[in-house]
Amino acid sequence: MIRRYRFEAALLPTGWARDVHMTVDADGRIAALAGGAAASAAGTADAAPAGAAVVAGIAVPGMPNAHSHAFQRAMAGAAEFRRSDADSFWTWRDAMYGLANRIEPADLAVIAAQLFVEMLKSGYTSVAEFHYLHRRRGGESYRGTNDLWQAVEAAARDTGIGLTFLPALYQRADFGDRPLEREQARFRLETEEFLRAVQARVAAGRAPAAADVRTGAAFHSLRAVSLEVLRDAAADLRRADPALPLHVHVAEQTREVDACRQATGRRPVELLLDTGLVDEHWCLVHATHATARELRGVAAAGATVCLAITTEGNLGDGLFDSARFMSRGGRVCIGSDSQISVSPAEELRWLEYQQRLAKRRRGVLATDGEPHVGTRLWTEAARHGAQALGRDAGALAVGRLADLVVLDPAHPALAGAPLERTLDHLVFAGAAAAIRDVMVAGRWVVSGGRHAGEEAIAAAFRDLMRRLD
Amino acid sequence: MIRRYRFEAALLPTGWARDVHMTVDADGRIAALAGGAAASAAGTADAAPAGAAVVAGIAVPGMPNAHSHAFQRAMAGAAEFRRSDADSFWTWRDAMYGLANRIEPADLAVIAAQLFVEMLKSGYTSVAEFHYLHRRRGGESYRGTNDLWQAVEAAARDTGIGLTFLPALYQRADFGDRPLEREQARFRLETEEFLRAVQARVAAGRAPAAADVRTGAAFHSLRAVSLEVLRDAAADLRRADPALPLHVHVAEQTREVDACRQATGRRPVELLLDTGLVDEHWCLVHATHATARELRGVAAAGATVCLAITTEGNLGDGLFDSARFMSRGGRVCIGSDSQISVSPAEELRWLEYQQRLAKRRRGVLATDGEPHVGTRLWTEAARHGAQALGRDAGALAVGRLADLVVLDPAHPALAGAPLERTLDHLVFAGAAAAIRDVMVAGRWVVSGGRHAGEEAIAAAFRDLMRRLD
Repeated sequence: MIRRYRFEAALLPTGWARDVHMTVDADGRIAALAGGAAASAAGTADAAPAGAAVVAGIAVPGMPNAHSHAFQRAMAGAAEFRRSDADSFWTWRDAMYGLANRIEPADLAVIAAQLFVEMLKSGYTSVAEFHYLHRRRGGESYRGTNDLWQAVEAAARDTGIGLTFLPALYQRADFGDRPLEREQARFRLETEEFLRAVQARVAAGRAPAAADVRTGAAFHSLRAVSLEVLRDAAADLRRADPALPLHVHVAEQTREVDACRQATGRRPVELLLDTGLVDEHWCLVHATHATARELRGVAAAGATVCLAITTEGNLGDGLFDSARFMSRGGRVCIGSDSQISVSPAEELRWLEYQQRLAKRRRGVLATDGEPHVGTRLWTEAARHGAQALGRDAGALAVGRLADLVVLDPAHPALAGAPLERTLDHLVFAGAAAAIRDVMVAGRWVVSGGRHAGEEAIAAAFRDLMRRLD
Repeated sequence: MIRRYRFEAALLPTGWARDVHMTVDADGRIAALAGGAAASAAGTADAAPAGAAVVAGIAVPGMPNAHSHAFQRAMAGAAEFRRSDADSFWTWRDAMYGLANRIEPADLAVIAAQLFVEMLKSGYTSVAEFHYLHRRRGGESYRGTNDLWQAVEAAARDTGIGLTFLPALYQRADFGDRPLEREQARFRLETEEFLRAVQARVAAGRAPAAADVRTGAAFHSLRAVSLEVLRDAAADLRRADPALPLHVHVAEQTREVDACRQATGRRPVELLLDTGLVDEHWCLVHATHATARELRGVAAAGATVCLAITTEGNLGDGLFDSARFMSRGGRVCIGSDSQISVSPAEELRWLEYQQRLAKRRRGVLATDGEPHVGTRLWTEAARHGAQALGRDAGALAVGRLADLVVLDPAHPALAGAPLERTLDHLVFAGAAAAIRDVMVAGRWVVSGGRHAGEEAIAAAFRDLMRRLD
């Protein structure tokens, strides 16, 4: 079915426009788009073309969430520890392992559904699930379909979020081929198993019935996958799909950088770049401790870097040099990662604030070309997030999926805001609360601030959390 | 009228308790308090003592907002500039001057009412208004009552937030007695005028009809007030009220530190401490660029430091060394300052995250005594905020004002959270959305997530913002 909409205003690739007409085809793609920049602010039903639904609001591109571990939603807030001298990324990881070894596929579906509703309501319209929970509790494989993978897909389908599913290869505990610890047994994936599964998903994804799920693949990290395996597997996957999204955690912790140098003589990002594999279909997650030279290399390759600002803050990872990277054309996207916060606005606000605090000036990630720093932050993260997810989205343009967020211009957080400041208000000044409607691939999934399934999903989540704890 | 409540659970000075009975007297103070830590989680109406209202929720101390410039709410989101090399605190200040010179008292009442509703809904139950808008547009004095001051008080009264009003002395443009610029004309206050007004307010405040408004005073900064005037005026005010709250902006910008050293040979915080005036009734706002020695001095004096984490991030001020200060017993409170964010949870979360990022470990501001970092952050900021406001609040204890926030334990952000982790979830993991009811001095001002006046106040705010812009 073809649907027509008339938005009060929208952010198009050419800039802000009022009175925007959009046609969405049966596949959820934008088939036609016309904006009258000089038109009046208030579209009325009378003036709408026959059959167009009038949307009294401001449409902006939905935000792809380029890095998520859905199951970690069940430990958000439950892993703040007491002893300041001993708590670190590594103690957090122990708690995460504890959770990972408690949940069953049905639990994961419940957790992910709750999380995906929260994502949609905060402005994330799609998510890259970097998924390393592969086996039964205890370490046995699932036979046939992987129930844990299916659980994530079911949650995406039930909530309507766009999904890029990234099965993650995980094979060892650390550099030097240290075997997996007992609590990592559920993460194990054999290389052949991984390749076969991803290739099968790629083949199935070309079928018309594939719904709104895309396939990519991940290498957990250079700690968890040897360079040789990574190189061969990535080359294999490239042959199966030249545009397959490939993600990897890299250089999040200095301990990882040190271990990598000791094992290989090179730093993690350097090592990855030296494989010659990194291109625009790669997403480097964190890359916190990268040198200026490494950042130049990543920017030149056209790969995205996914920052998870709130998680990196919560885990005390350190600061990525986004000012340097972005000023050299580097492509930054964002992710909610550990789910400690689920808010694209907070990620982007603190991405900018960290640079301001470090440099003691404002508008650090602004450019002269795009006058409003909020607009630049949101649109670039949306565009590069879509690139990282391998999803034709990230901008309101003909041929792309209709992934969008509608802000209520009557909300006090937007009062008096000229149209072109909408994203400054969204990113910096509380207008995330003005998100009213959310569309994914042409389907409304949040209307009037509510998701149709939210009560039932929250009830199931509450029940589960009582049982888990 | 005496009212009795039975809360499902509450955070008392002795720790978390279930089934908490609270009696509030006619003045809004807690008259009696009893918690049964071993009691069942779910209080029921049947089990409540005669006349007690059952509150199915978790009560925590309301947060005092120790630093606010209400009028700046009207420019939140409207002052993000384009040129990254030129935008700074000082360009932001120019935009702020532009706004300050456009508004009338009636406008200020509307802006402040909208802001105060937002504060209450986010968990701030009282506010210190650091107020330096004193004169008519153009610079003439008001005769008799100051309509701008009255506007702030009217907004507090209309919304129910607890107010400590701090008229701020402002007399010059910079060190070296540089005269005020034209755009600073509305800020001017003569010393005599300032002293008389504050003393009159102190006298009136002792009368029983004083409602929920307290009086303090502020010195805008060492830039705007000479050391001699500050010293004499502070001593005068101390004689009028030995416990009068005195606030001052200090060392927010390195340019201020440099100018102060050049003019006086000393740094701003050092200069203040050397007066010998600083005691527990002083609140030093920002103190960003303080040395370790200065921090020791402030901690030893028992003064509070008010951090405005989101504003300091937005303005690129720099990082206050809260880990050092707090580990030496320093008292930190928080404020929403420029109103770019209005969220105690975000202030506290990023207070902690900044330290984690700098030190690359977690739980930096945790102590061994209080196992949960969220509990420590919230309770200390509440206690020290109350100290800064000169308000008998900041903890749920007999004799204090009943300023409190009730969280809905059924909210998904609290699902599965053990009671003692409530504030970890509130500060770090999205449970600010679970704030359901808010009480100020014994009066419910937010119920079921709504303030009774919010629609009318928002409508007036929208109308004003359309006119202002």
